[in-house]
Amino acid sequence: MGEVRVIEVHEDVFAQNNHAAADVRQMLADNGTFFINVMSAPGSGKTTLLTALISRLKDKVNIAEMDVDIESSLDAQRVADATGVKSLQIHNGGLCHIDADMTKRALQDFDIEGVDLLILENIGNLVCPAEFDTGAHKNVMLLSVPEGDDKPLKYPLMFTVSDIVLITKTDTMGFFNFDPDKAKERILKLNPNAVILPVSAKTGEGMEELESLILDAVQKNK
Amino acid sequence: MGEVRVIEVHEDVFAQNNHAAADVRQMLADNGTFFINVMSAPGSGKTTLLTALISRLKDKVNIAEMDVDIESSLDAQRVADATGVKSLQIHNGGLCHIDADMTKRALQDFDIEGVDLLILENIGNLVCPAEFDTGAHKNVMLLSVPEGDDKPLKYPLMFTVSDIVLITKTDTMGFFNFDPDKAKERILKLNPNAVILPVSAKTGEGMEELESLILDAVQKNK
Repeated sequence: MGEVRVIEVHEDVFAQNNHAAADVRQMLADNGTFFINVMSAPGSGKTTLLTALISRLKDKVNIAEMDVDIESSLDAQRVADATGVKSLQIHNGGLCHIDADMTKRALQDFDIEGVDLLILENIGNLVCPAEFDTGAHKNVMLLSVPEGDDKPLKYPLMFTVSDIVLITKTDTMGFFNFDPDKAKERILKLNPNAVILPVSAKTGEGMEELESLILDAVQKNK
Repeated sequence: MGEVRVIEVHEDVFAQNNHAAADVRQMLADNGTFFINVMSAPGSGKTTLLTALISRLKDKVNIAEMDVDIESSLDAQRVADATGVKSLQIHNGGLCHIDADMTKRALQDFDIEGVDLLILENIGNLVCPAEFDTGAHKNVMLLSVPEGDDKPLKYPLMFTVSDIVLITKTDTMGFFNFDPDKAKERILKLNPNAVILPVSAKTGEGMEELESLILDAVQKNK
């Protein structure tokens, strides 16, 4: 008989993840750090938006940023170059998500003492990241105008687990078949408590509201 | 001691998938059917492009189309309404990919006798679908201009396994920071044999070349 390796099944993976998420939340509480997990499809504008948001916030609160990618370090470098904040690139070796255990290990390496706001730029994917609690206080997701207003119908879990939904690249609204009212209606049907905010890093639309929203949450966490 | 369930590990999942892919290819050979697997990020324009392509091809070859989604049936309905071809919606229950076993089961239900060209619209995702052979003869992937020219650096496996890379929504080139030469260079570095074609379903750019490319492959398969 050959060797049989055993791995635990799905339910246990999630139970283990919930333990790791609780550990992450304890590490955050010990440091007074507010943690947001930013998710979207590839190319929705996460890095551009976060760079613009961090530039607005960095003189008001102490920020650290973590980026997840399969093997490149482009995004963490872009954020660090543009904003000067402490930035960490996590390579997840080809997985389609990051879970709380990976976040926990990253936080063991990445000192968050004195950090008021920790931002995680998740891997570009509308399926897998929605399934894993990373230990974040709030999930933020981006739906870009070029992707279309039907995405809540097609990737419902992502919209269900997101506290804040940013409609991005609103400056391109005229070029795509995107109905903002339909998008909002579909998001709120899945998640009646979602805060929905149209933004454009290019024109600055919505950026002041987003800044206030995050700043307010960081201050309430103190 | 509680009950321990055992599932086989990753390598065996891929080995099983390769068996199923061989079964799918035999079913295709028995029917003289050419099969393409179409992949991309969410919102890259798969359904719009396929509708335009099928409309051009449907009087020349007999086409059937399968759409994968988590739980909605929007895409199969859109293709069927716009083109009149036989269309099947596969619900994959929340997974981030479709594998050859799912394709095989779909083909057991979905009669492909007399079908010259079978098209699979995969789930919108740049990570998981690249890992699973679906039994297709050719992988086609879409990279839309709004997503940015850095995607080959960030999702390398998808570009490595794709025979044809379509740069879509080229009509929006002026509005986004997308350098087609950089995109091509990055794709060819991963996959020197990739056929790269800029297309726009809106303006028709590249659609004649794409039609010829697919028609030629279907005829060579006979």
